[in-house]
Amino acid sequence: MINPPAQIGASLAEIDTPALIVDLNAFERNISKMAQYVASTGVQLRAHAKTHKSSDVAKKQMAAGAVGQCVQKVGEAEALVNAGVLDVLVTNQIVGTDKLRRLATLAHKAKIGLCFDDPAQVHAASDAAVREGVNIEGYVEIDTGMLRCGVKPGAMAADLARQIAAADGLTFKGIQAYHGSAQHLPTAFERQTEIARAIGFVKDTLGALRRIGLEAQAITGAGTGTFRLEAESGVYTELQAGSYAFMDVDYAMIQDENGRDYSEFEHSLFILSTIMSVAGENWVVADAGLKSYSGEKGPPRVYNGPGLSVVSMSDEHGKIAVSHGAKRPKLGEKVLLIPGHCDPTINLHNWYVGVRNGRVEEIWDIDARGASR
Amino acid sequence: MINPPAQIGASLAEIDTPALIVDLNAFERNISKMAQYVASTGVQLRAHAKTHKSSDVAKKQMAAGAVGQCVQKVGEAEALVNAGVLDVLVTNQIVGTDKLRRLATLAHKAKIGLCFDDPAQVHAASDAAVREGVNIEGYVEIDTGMLRCGVKPGAMAADLARQIAAADGLTFKGIQAYHGSAQHLPTAFERQTEIARAIGFVKDTLGALRRIGLEAQAITGAGTGTFRLEAESGVYTELQAGSYAFMDVDYAMIQDENGRDYSEFEHSLFILSTIMSVAGENWVVADAGLKSYSGEKGPPRVYNGPGLSVVSMSDEHGKIAVSHGAKRPKLGEKVLLIPGHCDPTINLHNWYVGVRNGRVEEIWDIDARGASR
Repeated sequence: MINPPAQIGASLAEIDTPALIVDLNAFERNISKMAQYVASTGVQLRAHAKTHKSSDVAKKQMAAGAVGQCVQKVGEAEALVNAGVLDVLVTNQIVGTDKLRRLATLAHKAKIGLCFDDPAQVHAASDAAVREGVNIEGYVEIDTGMLRCGVKPGAMAADLARQIAAADGLTFKGIQAYHGSAQHLPTAFERQTEIARAIGFVKDTLGALRRIGLEAQAITGAGTGTFRLEAESGVYTELQAGSYAFMDVDYAMIQDENGRDYSEFEHSLFILSTIMSVAGENWVVADAGLKSYSGEKGPPRVYNGPGLSVVSMSDEHGKIAVSHGAKRPKLGEKVLLIPGHCDPTINLHNWYVGVRNGRVEEIWDIDARGASR
Repeated sequence: MINPPAQIGASLAEIDTPALIVDLNAFERNISKMAQYVASTGVQLRAHAKTHKSSDVAKKQMAAGAVGQCVQKVGEAEALVNAGVLDVLVTNQIVGTDKLRRLATLAHKAKIGLCFDDPAQVHAASDAAVREGVNIEGYVEIDTGMLRCGVKPGAMAADLARQIAAADGLTFKGIQAYHGSAQHLPTAFERQTEIARAIGFVKDTLGALRRIGLEAQAITGAGTGTFRLEAESGVYTELQAGSYAFMDVDYAMIQDENGRDYSEFEHSLFILSTIMSVAGENWVVADAGLKSYSGEKGPPRVYNGPGLSVVSMSDEHGKIAVSHGAKRPKLGEKVLLIPGHCDPTINLHNWYVGVRNGRVEEIWDIDARGASR
């Protein structure tokens, strides 16, 4: 049992560390900016819960107009549906009889979508849906050029759609066409090139579907790095962005169309950390390491800390180099770190601490933390 | 609430995935090999719980002769002491009044040690111990050449020891002299060079302590990559190894004295994963990603999978390239992955599934998971 690191009303200095902090003003501006953008287009937002892992955040996104949530795992879907989020798309293949049974039971109370890239998955999901007496919306996942999951676009995808449409307990709903590896391509030009290719693959697949008399009601995909491209494609109907609510160093390192830092959204997510050692000559050590932020995209950045940089990450230490002339943090001082990669960082924590103007205003439960099954 | 991924008696194929698996035979050989080695020397084992995060594992280590446990955080100490592990050294600085109060309350029922590298930490811990009416054993942490926490060896360290010895509620116990960055140096020669330097720093500090009339009862440090060097140094009294119980790819990549792969201990820790997509031409996709293993030391290795290599890691996907001629895993097939880095990987899971000869024999609670405060 891990208690929240702060109580409502506490100051930033009173929050126990390490803690996952949300700057509520920045977070709300991000949610609102995306909602306004989506409202100005013909597409809808189905925000990705793999990023936030929290039904509290899901409900805020839906209150701002998101039509539902995406998840990667059945466990995430369970957390959301149990909390009253009743429109969930599993943007992934689910393999295993028990997992499919769990998913099918959720379809008694929520609209559930599921992606396929193999006929065996279709048969297994159909069996589970029939056994529960429910309907699951089936999506064909196509490989958009990401080279991960998904069938080849065009005739192969249409053939799988036909099998979904013919399966008891399943309805053919549309195409999952997410291009994950395009999201972090450094230049806008590279992202445009990859998404243009993905849009071509979607169109090929729509053509092949028409030829066999099937229609895709939903074309779903897009992330925080490319969402405008899919939204303005004329073919996508739903956006699956997740990181836009929080941002991270990984997204801070890509460029916009003018070659400037990508600044569609603001950093709203931080690790609050305490300086625990100042014995080093030109460095200090913070009490947050690899168990408070994920390191595979590189170290976190010190927020508002000119001349301070995290130069090594241990399990529970972050070593911060202090440049010549920079203000040296004192023992016990608190620093805010911007995580390298928001999704796996959030999954390390049990609570978001929502802070506005230096005071804790809300605590959100990360109820899908660790729900990888 | 996350349930265990299997029940006692299940076969490997029946375990839900992703799951953290311990090969009990290999684990027990590792525990036993270290215990026998330690018994053959004059030193003692105080295994590091930051690796295993579990009072179940701690008790197995102590049943094999470990004198106590190391932790990095008060939350880890709480989990262990509450489960009956009554000799815990915090191998770290603890900063914050409330954290020190929590630590001091544990000293009512357990022997508690704590490291210092600043006089202000000594005063704060003394205040907490006096307020609780307990005694805490104080260690001076010296910088062994790791350049993270720790005061300079010699006179500066002795002066801090003097302040610990003089502080109410604290007893000066010894020297924390862990050289973390030496553990993964690729060659045995480099590790020997760094640890020889660290041993020199310890001796300098012992000399400086003697000159002011203080004696260090405990000299504690060492990890899985260097433990024989500290054990045979004539100065260290305790070893803090943790990874030895499990091992990982990071340790598999260092060399022994003969330039061969480091093989003191066996891989006993795995992520069990299911193949969820086989749509790719020369790759398949497993259902375990960055939320089931940490990626900062590189991707996991496929165990017993010649020609299979994890080439990219997403939140919930591991893409496995299949070399020409290699056996291609089928949809639904289970694969075992050896994590890149055991400590942050274990911290992602709630349960160890202990397997012997293909059957689940034990389930261990990871009761200090997420206890980073």
